[in-house]
Amino acid sequence: MTTDPVALTQNLVRCPSVTPEEGGALVLLEEMLSAAGFSCTRVDRGGVPNLFARWGRKGAPSFGFNGHTDVVPVGDAAAWTHDPFGGEIAEGWLYGRGATDMKSGVAAFAAAAVDFVIETPPDGAVILAITGDEEGPSRDGTRALLDWMDAEGERMDVCLVGEPTCPEEMGDMMKIGRRGSMNAWFTFRGQQGHAAYPHRAKNPLPAMARLMADLAETELDRGTAHFDPSTLAVVTMDTGNQATNVIPAEARATVNIRFNDSHSGATLTAWLRREAARVSEATGIEIGMEVKISGESFLTPPGPLSELVAEAVAAETGRRPVLSTSGGTSDARFVKSHCPVVEFGLVGHRMHAVDERVRVEQIGQLKAIYARILRGWFAAEENS
Amino acid sequence: MTTDPVALTQNLVRCPSVTPEEGGALVLLEEMLSAAGFSCTRVDRGGVPNLFARWGRKGAPSFGFNGHTDVVPVGDAAAWTHDPFGGEIAEGWLYGRGATDMKSGVAAFAAAAVDFVIETPPDGAVILAITGDEEGPSRDGTRALLDWMDAEGERMDVCLVGEPTCPEEMGDMMKIGRRGSMNAWFTFRGQQGHAAYPHRAKNPLPAMARLMADLAETELDRGTAHFDPSTLAVVTMDTGNQATNVIPAEARATVNIRFNDSHSGATLTAWLRREAARVSEATGIEIGMEVKISGESFLTPPGPLSELVAEAVAAETGRRPVLSTSGGTSDARFVKSHCPVVEFGLVGHRMHAVDERVRVEQIGQLKAIYARILRGWFAAEENS
Ligand SMILES: [Zn+2]
Ligand SMILES: [Zn+2]
Repeated sequence: MTTDPVALTQNLVRCPSVTPEEGGALVLLEEMLSAAGFSCTRVDRGGVPNLFARWGRKGAPSFGFNGHTDVVPVGDAAAWTHDPFGGEIAEGWLYGRGATDMKSGVAAFAAAAVDFVIETPPDGAVILAITGDEEGPSRDGTRALLDWMDAEGERMDVCLVGEPTCPEEMGDMMKIGRRGSMNAWFTFRGQQGHAAYPHRAKNPLPAMARLMADLAETELDRGTAHFDPSTLAVVTMDTGNQATNVIPAEARATVNIRFNDSHSGATLTAWLRREAARVSEATGIEIGMEVKISGESFLTPPGPLSELVAEAVAAETGRRPVLSTSGGTSDARFVKSHCPVVEFGLVGHRMHAVDERVRVEQIGQLKAIYARILRGWFAAEENS
Repeated sequence: MTTDPVALTQNLVRCPSVTPEEGGALVLLEEMLSAAGFSCTRVDRGGVPNLFARWGRKGAPSFGFNGHTDVVPVGDAAAWTHDPFGGEIAEGWLYGRGATDMKSGVAAFAAAAVDFVIETPPDGAVILAITGDEEGPSRDGTRALLDWMDAEGERMDVCLVGEPTCPEEMGDMMKIGRRGSMNAWFTFRGQQGHAAYPHRAKNPLPAMARLMADLAETELDRGTAHFDPSTLAVVTMDTGNQATNVIPAEARATVNIRFNDSHSGATLTAWLRREAARVSEATGIEIGMEVKISGESFLTPPGPLSELVAEAVAAETGRRPVLSTSGGTSDARFVKSHCPVVEFGLVGHRMHAVDERVRVEQIGQLKAIYARILRGWFAAEENS
């Protein structure tokens, strides 16, 4: 039996699973995996649907896969050239919301896993931890699955995340870590007054300009062995004062930091606090700060797992992937506390945009790569 | 005959002359001045009502008065303790929109002028140039009156502006000039992108922060003989970006400059352009700038006119007024191109605010001061 990952991708795209709607996608996967002998459990939390599926016995050496079936909204539906929930194929492209991010990745792994356990049943376990909220707040998605697994004594020895990782060509990049990400929201409070009498007011705007200029002009680091330099982006500065003769009482600014392994959320928070205190002291403006750390940086150092994936990619595509830590965040930031994690998926054409689409032949390639990884990992386990 | 300036103020307050509504205020003045022998002309322009009134023959030595009968809106009407258009008197206060700014000033001068020309007709002319748009755009108010006077060969030899000038006590300050005022609107244009890939975007916010910090921290001067230091206030900085993972394409900032006689609108515009060009070159961000000069600085140097006013104030109040150039702009900025101009009026309690009000006895004092100024000026003219 050979499971068709293209038809499975089409069927998943036809499920309108915009976060946090299940849309039929997890139900479809559960039916298919159950039929192949996986034991499936819905691990819903806080209105978010999640699916845990294990083939093989609990506690056996286990290979895990993490992915999501939820998708971002369609956006301007009229601008699509194909139904965003149609799964139509035209000129070698499969169109639809989630076609690349990441229903094709889930379909390719599920198809590979079903064929693998049926054709060459391994002496171990294959686990799929699939969430319905990676694109939303991500509070009750992969985190809920991992919390549940901890409570139930379920373990993955390693985990592959199937997000699109290739910037240009199939196989050109895999991820062995991610930079951390955090936001800081600043509030600058002074005292309103007439622009003709600035000495009677306390203008918060020079303090905001000074702090944002200083933060933006700071070199956080020059990169590390496996990471690009950390970056800080001032993403908004706002006052909302319409009157040119009025000095406003308050202003707000937000920065987003993407940081490598020479920092942590805590060290950066402390640095931001010191900088704000310095400017506050120099200007007499009260500066408030709220911080949210979306994820710490992490790295699965190059080793057997990354080598296994890179070899499989090279065998199927003729291209050895770059081991990268670039880009945004993914649920790998949660998985890394559970077990070593790497990421490999296809080329992300128009992710989150109108006319999201995937090359049909890449879905087959991806299934073949995942199948090689499964065979290789269990073969190595048996020899160890 | 003695004209009552308090009743006249009450009657003017009862005219709902929110800019640019005439509200009956100029009609009331025109009737009263015509009855006293003034020749009156309505000099309306662009929907703005204005009144020119002259007693005596055209071309004679002339003392001029400039003021306005328009008022700013009531604001939160429910918060007033007295009808804002009622002209009610309670515990020695006359309440209402325009009570201090500046229907009482207009009433005090009109009452003084009428009594003066009837009781002691001078060998010269008394002119009132009253506008219905000082609080609005001020395009077709005092400027329209002055344009019309130029065209008609009407001249004031000196002019007194009756705006409230006293910060604390009746008589504590008069104005012999004003700082200039200008606004500059900056637009910073970069290129939108994802906050995780800042090198692929061009963030306009560090450029905005840098330019605003530099401008705000520049000492423009340390003041001059008759002027306070010039000031620059950053009044707003805005982006409107809701998404913390997006670098915005554009941001905007506005500065307001109040400048003394060591600058002009043109020299400051050139300086702002140089600063913007420097930051644009350093950051690669396109910076656009629009400038509006509301008024140049001006000074009527201390001399016979300011001395005459200061003496009259001292005689009636026992207080010698400080000769100041502080504060916001007034229509004196237009009059100064026509003739020497000084400003004196009462204490501006709650100007533009809820429960605007004036001490009743100050209206009588102000009329007495204006009467002394008129007598003194024509006496000096006759002796010259
Ligand atoms: Zn994704
Ligand atoms: Zn006024």
